[in-house]
Amino acid sequence: MSRIAYVAGRYLPHGQASVHIEDRGYQFADGVYEVVAVSAGKRVDDDRHFERLERSLGELEIPMPMSRHALAIVMDEVLRRNRVRDGIIYLQVTRGRAPRDHAWSGDSVPVLTVTARRQPPPNEIMASRGVRVITLKDRRWKRNDIKSVNLLANVMGKSRARAAGAYEAWLIDDDDLVTEGTSTTAWIVSADGRLVTRPLDEAILGGVTRAALVDIAQQAGITLEERPFSRAEALAAREAFLTSTTAHVLAIISIDGQKIGDGQPGPVTTDLLDRYRRHVAGNKIS
Amino acid sequence: MSRIAYVAGRYLPHGQASVHIEDRGYQFADGVYEVVAVSAGKRVDDDRHFERLERSLGELEIPMPMSRHALAIVMDEVLRRNRVRDGIIYLQVTRGRAPRDHAWSGDSVPVLTVTARRQPPPNEIMASRGVRVITLKDRRWKRNDIKSVNLLANVMGKSRARAAGAYEAWLIDDDDLVTEGTSTTAWIVSADGRLVTRPLDEAILGGVTRAALVDIAQQAGITLEERPFSRAEALAAREAFLTSTTAHVLAIISIDGQKIGDGQPGPVTTDLLDRYRRHVAGNKIS
Repeated sequence: MSRIAYVAGRYLPHGQASVHIEDRGYQFADGVYEVVAVSAGKRVDDDRHFERLERSLGELEIPMPMSRHALAIVMDEVLRRNRVRDGIIYLQVTRGRAPRDHAWSGDSVPVLTVTARRQPPPNEIMASRGVRVITLKDRRWKRNDIKSVNLLANVMGKSRARAAGAYEAWLIDDDDLVTEGTSTTAWIVSADGRLVTRPLDEAILGGVTRAALVDIAQQAGITLEERPFSRAEALAAREAFLTSTTAHVLAIISIDGQKIGDGQPGPVTTDLLDRYRRHVAGNKIS
Repeated sequence: MSRIAYVAGRYLPHGQASVHIEDRGYQFADGVYEVVAVSAGKRVDDDRHFERLERSLGELEIPMPMSRHALAIVMDEVLRRNRVRDGIIYLQVTRGRAPRDHAWSGDSVPVLTVTARRQPPPNEIMASRGVRVITLKDRRWKRNDIKSVNLLANVMGKSRARAAGAYEAWLIDDDDLVTEGTSTTAWIVSADGRLVTRPLDEAILGGVTRAALVDIAQQAGITLEERPFSRAEALAAREAFLTSTTAHVLAIISIDGQKIGDGQPGPVTTDLLDRYRRHVAGNKIS
């Protein structure tokens, strides 16, 4: 747990880290966030996180609360005060405090909060065994390209997955296509051996780990097809896996109780995990 | 503005009314709310608000933070401390504070916040002139029957309406049907003179003012058709209006710049507003 949190200009003991009840993040989900991995004291893929943060804020017409440079200083100070060398930074920017009104006025001052916590890399046993996912109807809003805190549908989906003994829920759109997981990107190795993930659109988040893996695949000479795939194609796939900042590359061994491939992490998934780990460790694509 | 706010068991000066940054309402929009009108010191339609609050919480598996009776006492105390006799009460219940994780654990304690402010009844000039609305694609999530704070799409829609000089945006689903406004219920008097509003489903909120008006129409012998209607039907309607706790019954004189009827509040709308005002004043249906 974060012991010291940054809240709108101040470093506070975690227990005292609070925001006003009329912060628009609290009343309207009017804010965005990022989760940045830290490996050996270094922020992983921070340029991509900054870019995405600026894009999310731009779509909502919320100003950046400070420059990238200043934000990096705050993040490093939060890491230092919490003595985190391996873990995650969570940062959130809301439109700030204003008398309650659905429409925004432009008068409020954005509120930045930053926390950090130690977190080991994804569980080795889980990575070697793989995880189960279920599928659910995608009931989220239609701007999932914005990394907002408008996450109630994601919360409901993830909670249903956990209740079903699964790690994640893959969300299915009206055309029976997989969009993404509730907090992860969805990938398959198709029946004919192609690496496939959905192209970026407003239905999914542009994952930072996704972007890193696109580069890694290219440099490794692995052909990637960025195209939508259906639930049926996923069930018939040789391999399936998910990616995120915290999950890295995690093999999926069953979907809705149906075994994927031979029910064990496949060779493409294992190879990509290995390459991704080297990327995180070296912070460059190998 | 509320001068005293109730926050999780304490009555606090408004400026000090805060919640923890790991309140799930702030990080995940994991909470619900109600806005209750107060007329001459009396809460309007409070049974319907309690019922809806319990239903919203039930759908999210969040326990009621206290009994209806205790909640009524808190609401009245907030009214008293803020000397509000005519205005609104805002109450919000979130799942409470927990280390950040999309899935809920059941361990957190729900956080209740209550504020109240004086607010005159809807502007008389606006009511007599009517307002303009625009239409937008409905990009919200698919559980709008839950009165949650997962409101970012509503915020974006209302802000676009304001920027266009309109009071509200009516949201249009994939079948070109009107769902509702960003914070109000949509009604028309069709070209053939029928009062029409969309039936309750997961696409819309079960409005308290909507429910009151359904009863009022029935007792007045006005036939109501609860069925979906399209944007095209709305544009061709004799009358259009919107309802909400704060807007009462508000005539719409244009949709996307096209005049509705003769561009003035129509007789059915005006009659329903008159009946609704008597309902609010007497707190019974007349």
